[in-house]
Amino acid sequence: MNSFNIHLNEKIASTKSHLCVGLDISPNNLNKIDSDIHDLKKHTFKVIDSTRDLVVAYKPNLAFYERWGSKGFEWLEETLDYIGEDIITIGDAKRGDIGNTADQYAKSIFGHFGFDAVTLSPYMGKDSILPFIQNAEKGAFILCKTSNPSSVDIQNLNSGDTKVFETVAKLSRDWNQNNNIGLVVGATAINEIGLIRKYAKDMPFLIPGIGAQGGDLKESMKQGNINGSAIINISRGICFAGNQNEKDIRMKAVEYCKKMRESLNA
Amino acid sequence: MNSFNIHLNEKIASTKSHLCVGLDISPNNLNKIDSDIHDLKKHTFKVIDSTRDLVVAYKPNLAFYERWGSKGFEWLEETLDYIGEDIITIGDAKRGDIGNTADQYAKSIFGHFGFDAVTLSPYMGKDSILPFIQNAEKGAFILCKTSNPSSVDIQNLNSGDTKVFETVAKLSRDWNQNNNIGLVVGATAINEIGLIRKYAKDMPFLIPGIGAQGGDLKESMKQGNINGSAIINISRGICFAGNQNEKDIRMKAVEYCKKMRESLNA
Repeated sequence: MNSFNIHLNEKIASTKSHLCVGLDISPNNLNKIDSDIHDLKKHTFKVIDSTRDLVVAYKPNLAFYERWGSKGFEWLEETLDYIGEDIITIGDAKRGDIGNTADQYAKSIFGHFGFDAVTLSPYMGKDSILPFIQNAEKGAFILCKTSNPSSVDIQNLNSGDTKVFETVAKLSRDWNQNNNIGLVVGATAINEIGLIRKYAKDMPFLIPGIGAQGGDLKESMKQGNINGSAIINISRGICFAGNQNEKDIRMKAVEYCKKMRESLNA
Repeated sequence: MNSFNIHLNEKIASTKSHLCVGLDISPNNLNKIDSDIHDLKKHTFKVIDSTRDLVVAYKPNLAFYERWGSKGFEWLEETLDYIGEDIITIGDAKRGDIGNTADQYAKSIFGHFGFDAVTLSPYMGKDSILPFIQNAEKGAFILCKTSNPSSVDIQNLNSGDTKVFETVAKLSRDWNQNNNIGLVVGATAINEIGLIRKYAKDMPFLIPGIGAQGGDLKESMKQGNINGSAIINISRGICFAGNQNEKDIRMKAVEYCKKMRESLNA
């Protein structure tokens, strides 16, 4: 089988989609008052049913599952089963720990849950990344420049004439021996994508921050998709669209797909 | 009730212990071949039974539980119940994500599982820390200078005349308005503790890296305990001591406690 990055490119080509739907299903966002984990599960399946043929990937956010403890992890197991093998799954976990612990997280994410890829934090360096990239078929998206306002606190520190996030891009390129590393680059940091691309010419970008966080879709596609492998993540903007029924969710996903295609054609 | 840092100091005083036992229970470390999750659970309870009156804290490492999915989280729920209310529990999770996601992780760690404290990664900045420190009774240990060899990759980058890990110490001090933030400082980076202490005079240090990772216990106590609130974590060195029976585990924990007291008296 191919390395993750090649597999991703092929999937983008075959689905004709750059859309990743982030599954951040919180009771706070559901219309229903006093919703419980069964409502959340039902809503997750509804989102998947409504968008399955429109996406290149789903990105379940582990926090929203962990909040419910073992019952939440059952829901995550069912979510992965429900998505099935044909669509790329990215475990949004942002893990980062010493080698022997990272090894356990890799067994969790890839082995137990069966995700195709994971998001990782680079603060602890190479040791904390290696266990996730041994198997070329599994992918790792490393946090480079994130979409939140305080991403500047550490990521934008100057180190010589480069910023910390540029060093992360450079290191990630060096670690990418199996062609299975990508970078997380927020749509809200669109001006910095050029800087990152300098180091990471061939690596895919996972781009969150469109929608609720206010990032620019058109620019993200333009800057992020130079190598054809931008994945644009939308979470709340699709999962809780309109009246939260299948029709409204699907309509919003179709609208985003259309906008992405238009950006590419422009 | 007191802020977490005051509570921690009082607990160190009342238990006369700086020992934190890290619960990183992996099948690879058990004597038994083909051990399953029931063996791991049994061993966890054995470690707790053998050390309960010797420790100031337990630090379950979430990776070792997550590896088993929902069944692993059941084991974690049972572990917290088994430890009970009297001993400080630190969820070694190293989470770090945007605000609305961090909020879910806080609900998981403090709300669902009922930990007293958590470990966090600072790469995404203040937004990713805030949801964990709103409640002064709950503590957050922020990764500053970690114990693994590749911690230098990002943490030791020079930014002006300070290193990134010093900036993390400085920021953590600024964020510590509720007196519930501590720092993770590896025993293997003992020379750097002085630099960190400059910024974090009154904050507790959680010090891993003794034992399997080769850090220096005596120096860690000397440098880390200037303000009386060093917590020394030992995981594998105690959990899998000798023949892995209660007597051997306890003997090793007693030995570490004795060494810590000697370091203080020296």
